[in-house]
Amino acid sequence: MYIGQTAFLERTFEESDIINFANLTLDTNPVHLDEGFAKHTRFKKRIAHGLLTGSLIGAVLGTKLPGSGAVLLKQSFNFKEPVFVGDRVKAVLEVTEINEKSIGKIVKIKSRCFNQFEIIVLDGESTLLISAIK
Amino acid sequence: MYIGQTAFLERTFEESDIINFANLTLDTNPVHLDEGFAKHTRFKKRIAHGLLTGSLIGAVLGTKLPGSGAVLLKQSFNFKEPVFVGDRVKAVLEVTEINEKSIGKIVKIKSRCFNQFEIIVLDGESTLLISAIK
Repeated sequence: MYIGQTAFLERTFEESDIINFANLTLDTNPVHLDEGFAKHTRFKKRIAHGLLTGSLIGAVLGTKLPGSGAVLLKQSFNFKEPVFVGDRVKAVLEVTEINEKSIGKIVKIKSRCFNQFEIIVLDGESTLLISAIK
Repeated sequence: MYIGQTAFLERTFEESDIINFANLTLDTNPVHLDEGFAKHTRFKKRIAHGLLTGSLIGAVLGTKLPGSGAVLLKQSFNFKEPVFVGDRVKAVLEVTEINEKSIGKIVKIKSRCFNQFEIIVLDGESTLLISAIK
C-alpha cells in the first residue's frame, strides 16, 4: 500500500436495494420508501438511504483498499446531493496517509462518490487499522 | 424538537444480519464472515460491519428523532470497540443544536451506542435537514 493508491467500485441502487436496506437496518423513513410522501419533499422523489450509498465506500474498504482484515476505526460522510432509485454510483478511494504504529498501520483514505452524471453525491474520510497482530 | 431531546433503539445483531448486510452492501471482508480468518485477528472472532452498527443510529434518525422526512447531510462515526455476533446494542441519541435557516431547520444530534455490558462501542454526530419545503 502507498500514498496515492486508488481503488473504485460502481453500483446501481435498485428499488429492491433500498427496500432491503430499510428492512435490514430498520430505517423506514418514508423519504426512502413512500413515493407519495417523497413528492412533497425538496427532492420530489424517493432517495436512497445515505448510509446505503456510504456502504459502497465500505465495500471498497473491505474488499479492495485496504481489503481483507482491515478494521474501520473512523468514518465521516458528507452527503452532497441525493441518490435516487436507479442511480449508478461510483465510489473512488485514495490513500492519503499511512502511519506505522506498534499495533499496525493506521491508514487514512479519502473517498468520493459520483453519480452517472459525474456529480459528487458523497465524500468521506476513513481511518483504518491494518493490524500487526495475527 | 428541543435541545437535549433524546431517543433510543436497541437491537441484537444476529449472524443473519451480518450475512445479509454483507450481501446487500458487497462488503465481504472476512473479518465479518469467516470465523477461521477472524480467529487470527486482534479480536479473535468475527465482528459486525461498523456501518451495520452505525445503521442503528440511522434507524433512530429516520424513525424517531427527528423521524419522517429528515434528510441526513453529514455523519461521523468513531468505532471504539468491536461488536460481535449476538451482541445487543443500544443507540442513544441527543439533540445538541437547532439552527433555523431559510431552507429549514439544521439539526445536530450526538449519538452513543452501548453494548450489553454498557461499554461504548460507537459514538457519532449527525447533521440533518428538516426541510421547510413541502
